[in-house]
Amino acid sequence: MKTLGYYNGKYGELDEMTIPMNDRVSWFGDGVYDAGPSRNYEIFAIDEHIDRFFNSAGLLDIKMPVTKPELKELLQEMVNKMDTGNLFVYYQVTRGTGIRDHAYTEGPGNLWIMLKPAEISDGTKPIKLITREDTRFFHCNIKTLNLIPSVVATQKAKEAGCQECVFYRPGGRVTECAHSNVHIIKDGKLITAPTDNLILPGIARAHIIKACKKLEIPVSETPYTLDDLFNADEVIVSSSSNLCLHANEIDGKPVGGKAPELLEKIRVAVLDEFYKATDK
Amino acid sequence: MKTLGYYNGKYGELDEMTIPMNDRVSWFGDGVYDAGPSRNYEIFAIDEHIDRFFNSAGLLDIKMPVTKPELKELLQEMVNKMDTGNLFVYYQVTRGTGIRDHAYTEGPGNLWIMLKPAEISDGTKPIKLITREDTRFFHCNIKTLNLIPSVVATQKAKEAGCQECVFYRPGGRVTECAHSNVHIIKDGKLITAPTDNLILPGIARAHIIKACKKLEIPVSETPYTLDDLFNADEVIVSSSSNLCLHANEIDGKPVGGKAPELLEKIRVAVLDEFYKATDK
Repeated sequence: MKTLGYYNGKYGELDEMTIPMNDRVSWFGDGVYDAGPSRNYEIFAIDEHIDRFFNSAGLLDIKMPVTKPELKELLQEMVNKMDTGNLFVYYQVTRGTGIRDHAYTEGPGNLWIMLKPAEISDGTKPIKLITREDTRFFHCNIKTLNLIPSVVATQKAKEAGCQECVFYRPGGRVTECAHSNVHIIKDGKLITAPTDNLILPGIARAHIIKACKKLEIPVSETPYTLDDLFNADEVIVSSSSNLCLHANEIDGKPVGGKAPELLEKIRVAVLDEFYKATDK
Repeated sequence: MKTLGYYNGKYGELDEMTIPMNDRVSWFGDGVYDAGPSRNYEIFAIDEHIDRFFNSAGLLDIKMPVTKPELKELLQEMVNKMDTGNLFVYYQVTRGTGIRDHAYTEGPGNLWIMLKPAEISDGTKPIKLITREDTRFFHCNIKTLNLIPSVVATQKAKEAGCQECVFYRPGGRVTECAHSNVHIIKDGKLITAPTDNLILPGIARAHIIKACKKLEIPVSETPYTLDDLFNADEVIVSSSSNLCLHANEIDGKPVGGKAPELLEKIRVAVLDEFYKATDK
């Protein structure tokens, strides 16, 4: 074989292999991997790589469908089938298969293996580099598929008997939820995080703001803190899947319930717009 | 149809659909998405969602294979085929298909669509929440498939005619590269970032440290800065794909070259270990 793919017991050339659309990799990038070189059909430092692979999976609560010795044996068997013994030996485990849902259920992960020819540089030739500030978690305005943190937070909420998880940044600034935006009502005003790089610009958020403006409720798009959240008159959670929810408990403490009439006005306005737009 | 999937022109029930293993979603979660509800076969706020979808793709330089009106028409056609008109209408674009390579080439993305039954809550029932600090960026020790930042950084390096990109944090602390670790030699000593939550514990990194110990070269596992990097005697880049490379240029400025004998000792020791372990 020139290249070789493996997915849960099926083998083939990489460009002929397919995987189920509902593998959680497709919706959340929900998996971990490891990889290393082989030379002359010998996989280098394989035990170290497999140890790290199992450790990564454990840290994310992903269940391994094989043992370490089984994986090692499988990798060697596959390497032995190749036209060359100088390879990139890559393996990953994804968190099972199912209809898209951030929260997950028990069950073994899916095992993937991918082999392709590769030569290790002997390192005599120098390389050129660039630098970049590591801004990985300052691009929340881009709705990407790198969703593992949202998966983990949603699962933690579910395990706590809750429906969503509110994210805050060092210093206590509330930004957004795992898969929703979050807003507060205080002293007759709607306060919501500004649409900077720390939140996704929610479509439902925009419709809540529009409803408030129609109802002549003042709207302030300014950062607010965990303290503000716990002391809010009402806490509103919005997403395109659930346009206008409100919370009555956060981390086990009662919240909101102090401006029910205002909340109800907003809820009715937002849902009415939705019903009118979708009535037949 | 109860559920409906679409992938580049193919349709089917979600649990019967497959996608190519080499779609870049599989290796990098390399894509963006958007989604919203339909009710009575009417897709709500569709223009706003499609605008945001195209904006997300543009921010990551992912090429859309359809126009906005084409996507809107396609989504409506698919919604019309469903058993119920109350749906979760989800779509994503991934950055093409090919053998795993962080850097990417030109070409249209792959279009995915997924429909499943869903009801919008009217929001009268309160929900419960938890809070979590947003630590998304601080789990670099877990080797996950959420690799878009590595893809983007690698591509920037490639566009600059370079081989790798060095990440630093606010304050200038150097952590790791897009898909390698990075170390410096200064005054006869190897200095490398400690294996905390800001770097991946590289297997090649461990072998470089082992080689230094064997060669009686002192090793310091301590944080260092961009200044240290630019003023280093040598800059070493290591990964399982290229065990011991050295840099002679960073951001267009010459670096290293001041301890070539020490560098060569380390390179030879690391490569020798690899060659011995993989000789037949």
